Amino acid sequence: MSLFNIGFVIFPDLTQLDFTGPLQVLSRLPRSATHIVAKSAAPVPSDCGLGLVPTHTFANCPHLDLICIPGGSEGVAGIINDRETIEFVRQQAGVAKYVTSVCTGAFVLGVAGLLKGRRATTHWAYTDLLSLVGATYEKARVVKDGNVITGGGVTAGIDFGLSVIAEIAGEMTARRIQLGIEYDPAPPFDSGHPDKAPTIKSELLFARYNEFRTMYRTRIEQAVPF
Amino acid sequence: MSLFNIGFVIFPDLTQLDFTGPLQVLSRLPRSATHIVAKSAAPVPSDCGLGLVPTHTFANCPHLDLICIPGGSEGVAGIINDRETIEFVRQQAGVAKYVTSVCTGAFVLGVAGLLKGRRATTHWAYTDLLSLVGATYEKARVVKDGNVITGGGVTAGIDFGLSVIAEIAGEMTARRIQLGIEYDPAPPFDSGHPDKAPTIKSELLFARYNEFRTMYRTRIEQAVPF
Repeated sequence: MSLFNIGFVIFPDLTQLDFTGPLQVLSRLPRSATHIVAKSAAPVPSDCGLGLVPTHTFANCPHLDLICIPGGSEGVAGIINDRETIEFVRQQAGVAKYVTSVCTGAFVLGVAGLLKGRRATTHWAYTDLLSLVGATYEKARVVKDGNVITGGGVTAGIDFGLSVIAEIAGEMTARRIQLGIEYDPAPPFDSGHPDKAPTIKSELLFARYNEFRTMYRTRIEQAVPF
Repeated sequence: MSLFNIGFVIFPDLTQLDFTGPLQVLSRLPRSATHIVAKSAAPVPSDCGLGLVPTHTFANCPHLDLICIPGGSEGVAGIINDRETIEFVRQQAGVAKYVTSVCTGAFVLGVAGLLKGRRATTHWAYTDLLSLVGATYEKARVVKDGNVITGGGVTAGIDFGLSVIAEIAGEMTARRIQLGIEYDPAPPFDSGHPDKAPTIKSELLFARYNEFRTMYRTRIEQAVPF
């Protein structure tokens, strides 16, 4: 029996936890192989100063059963207009069983034309921009519409990963992995959702996200028509 | 003003999310520099097939204000008896403001003599072994005893990271980071703690952890007296 091929696409300045959270979960899927794919074989710098070593390049990546695009404000802004990346995603997604993203990785799927008419989610600071790629925002941490599964911002990738495991291998497998990674979260504060922290939301939009939101708008509009 | 130096020690077969979860959080501490330290400069293979590139080696690592040791069943078994690693940890911890671990990284601190007489936590499958290194297990996701802060298994590293940020930079900074990483967890299942999943607990102990538990016992006993 052939293995289920999971592939994560990584790129400079990605938010590493968007990728490493679901990687930890999905790499425990029974009878699967996990591939970490980048444009070239060189280590990819993440937003944290941590270099990540790909296992494959676009050129030698096998056909994927599941493709996952992590996000990152700056990282995604940098690849939305990259024809080679978007083409790779579009081609792999065309034959994959599942097409997925975490955080602002949704916009890479979007520019590749893969979210047209779909319900989807992304990082809270970017949800209203999903309409630019023809998607309808659904307020949930993980959204499944047909074979397209999208996760919210950064840490939502862990909930996303467990949901994907349940979808592919059943609930018991997901529960086993959940206990293995002791995922019984107890955040010391309750500011993880913009509805719960409206003042911090305004502050972060101003200080961190508005610049990237403008960049996303412009670059999505300039991107190859999808 | 000098930067607050944060250092993560990485080693082959570590559970990458033990490290990458708190890395995502702690690298956002204002006025800090994050260092990723390994025995040599070569990429370090994690448990997920992902290679992680260190920024420093033991030889050229600056003095750390905070040292964090991630875990991993197999990875930690491999370094518990490694004199060079234990010496590096002991020396850095001797001058650091905070000495910390996530998951079974606690046993590296333990063998270095840093948990003697301390309350601490670790991955649920190993909590009873904390007494072998002179620590007292406290049932909590994050345990602070003086300048020693330990986190539970794998995903507890995110709660740990936010607690450490609050300790160093205050609650508002932790809340800002929490919203940035959208940490409003919603696990699709409720099997993240052994108390909630006793059958899976027994199964995993048998299939996955007992072998490592035996290894930990033996190697801790053989380690340089601490």
